[in-house]
Amino acid sequence: MTERRFSEDELIAEIFAPLAGEGAFGLRDDAALLPLGGAREIVVTTDALVSGVHFFPDDPPGLVAKKALRVNLSDLAAKAAEPLGFLLTLSLPPDWTNDWARSFAAGLAEDAREFACPLLGGDTTATPGPLTISIAAFGRATRFVSRSGARPGDRIFVSGTIGDAALGLGVARGEAFAGRLGEGARAALLDRYRLPQPRLPLIATLREHASAAMDVSDGLVGDLVKLLRASGASARVELAKIPLSAAAREAVTAEPTLFDRAVTGGDDYEILCCIPLEAAAWASAAAPSLTEIGEVLAGEAAPLLLGRDGSARRYDKASFSHF
Amino acid sequence: MTERRFSEDELIAEIFAPLAGEGAFGLRDDAALLPLGGAREIVVTTDALVSGVHFFPDDPPGLVAKKALRVNLSDLAAKAAEPLGFLLTLSLPPDWTNDWARSFAAGLAEDAREFACPLLGGDTTATPGPLTISIAAFGRATRFVSRSGARPGDRIFVSGTIGDAALGLGVARGEAFAGRLGEGARAALLDRYRLPQPRLPLIATLREHASAAMDVSDGLVGDLVKLLRASGASARVELAKIPLSAAAREAVTAEPTLFDRAVTGGDDYEILCCIPLEAAAWASAAAPSLTEIGEVLAGEAAPLLLGRDGSARRYDKASFSHF
Repeated sequence: MTERRFSEDELIAEIFAPLAGEGAFGLRDDAALLPLGGAREIVVTTDALVSGVHFFPDDPPGLVAKKALRVNLSDLAAKAAEPLGFLLTLSLPPDWTNDWARSFAAGLAEDAREFACPLLGGDTTATPGPLTISIAAFGRATRFVSRSGARPGDRIFVSGTIGDAALGLGVARGEAFAGRLGEGARAALLDRYRLPQPRLPLIATLREHASAAMDVSDGLVGDLVKLLRASGASARVELAKIPLSAAAREAVTAEPTLFDRAVTGGDDYEILCCIPLEAAAWASAAAPSLTEIGEVLAGEAAPLLLGRDGSARRYDKASFSHF
Repeated sequence: MTERRFSEDELIAEIFAPLAGEGAFGLRDDAALLPLGGAREIVVTTDALVSGVHFFPDDPPGLVAKKALRVNLSDLAAKAAEPLGFLLTLSLPPDWTNDWARSFAAGLAEDAREFACPLLGGDTTATPGPLTISIAAFGRATRFVSRSGARPGDRIFVSGTIGDAALGLGVARGEAFAGRLGEGARAALLDRYRLPQPRLPLIATLREHASAAMDVSDGLVGDLVKLLRASGASARVELAKIPLSAAAREAVTAEPTLFDRAVTGGDDYEILCCIPLEAAAWASAAAPSLTEIGEVLAGEAAPLLLGRDGSARRYDKASFSHF
């Protein structure tokens, strides 16, 4: 009998987690701490982007560069770590051009400046395959906010709006619903897919108040499940409270089933965090981009997702997986 | 008129170096320092390996994993940095199997233990292209040994033996010379190509004595030119002093032109370092794997490479480049 191939989660949990060292949190977090001892908190994280998988081959090179850096900055933000710099490995396909390289570097330079995260080093190689970009980013935290600190009674917050990027991908693919949207909504969704906004301004609030946090990169519902599992807790979430942009609301109005895609699709790069009840009011006043969507409960049951009519929802495919 | 495409060096120097931050040494070193201020020396480095470019698709997965980690450990060793841990991004082609993943992870685990360099985190993605492995490794140094500190009068040393890996690649490709070697020599060269030996035991000697150091990854002659350029110096090297293994000597005896390949080919992962004259005797006594091959000279002329008969040699293609 042929063994079923590992899922992405199984590959990490069964094959690579046994190699994890001190500071790696069993590979169950967005980022790791360098094992330096003492109070020094150097946070490290890495993410790779492959042409045709994470972006379209004809996406503007400067935007691709920015996305590659920003998905890493999003992980640093979720751990309340101020960026220090990054390393870049670039595997270039046979047909790369000088203009491509200039545009890519120009986009990267803009973001390195905007987010005070300079290039520290890298490696360039040739590849017969698609353009592949891997970035490792480093940050400094005075308190590392893990995924595992959520406690019953904590309020659950999410930053910005959810689902725009997943819907933007549908727009990029020319799905039918896109034709029923106004031009403004289409452009807004597409922009969120192409260019994540790392939530670095939330660092101070997370550091001061969050019991647990992660970035939402593989779909809100699935990522919430991961955070709760790491914390050994359950939750109740009101789906109607999940913040949607005007563009996403336009899409959901045109096609109501898109709501499910919005809350389970990937690429949001928003912050999901838990904040103890006594600090919740302070935190949401300090960070108006945070919206309360639910509450952490005791137990290890799957989170209860309540629809507008009070009925419970289940999602069989709650998050994105590469394989 | 069509613009000529950038070489690998031009791409780094002209396009990416302007993005380099504090601690990045203008992207002219093997590794970088995190910009932490004060005496904290956290060294970061990254290298990517692409199937079909850096290794053969049918190389044993455990060896590929070890090579991917070791090329990074070699950079840490050259900067006198003790390993702290590493991040891994793995872009998996459509046909990967569980057995492949298990073997890859088993090799990685062995080396993580042997070199006290645990896995801290990573990212797995799918790719329609070849297997691509990118590792970022971190180390702690009490003194960062850059490429730029060589001074006239310093003695030039190289560790281990040079050229085995470049000749081993020839063996792997089934070149004609391989048929004229004994089985032992073939196996020894192939092993050096497949499995670099990061020279971590040299860290103490480098930290105490070296004025400049780098790892030899793109060919000894070309890498020496890079080190001298970074230091603003020239050198005189006696080619006959470059240490060759018994297997490499067997190859050069069979085919004398292979000497040039040995000293300009890549993948040695030995350490090239400069040590002030007054410490040279101490250093070579403390580290018998170091061989003195020449002397740093004032000026910015290309290094003088002296053949056995005292005549000067020139190499037009002194090192490996991906494009």
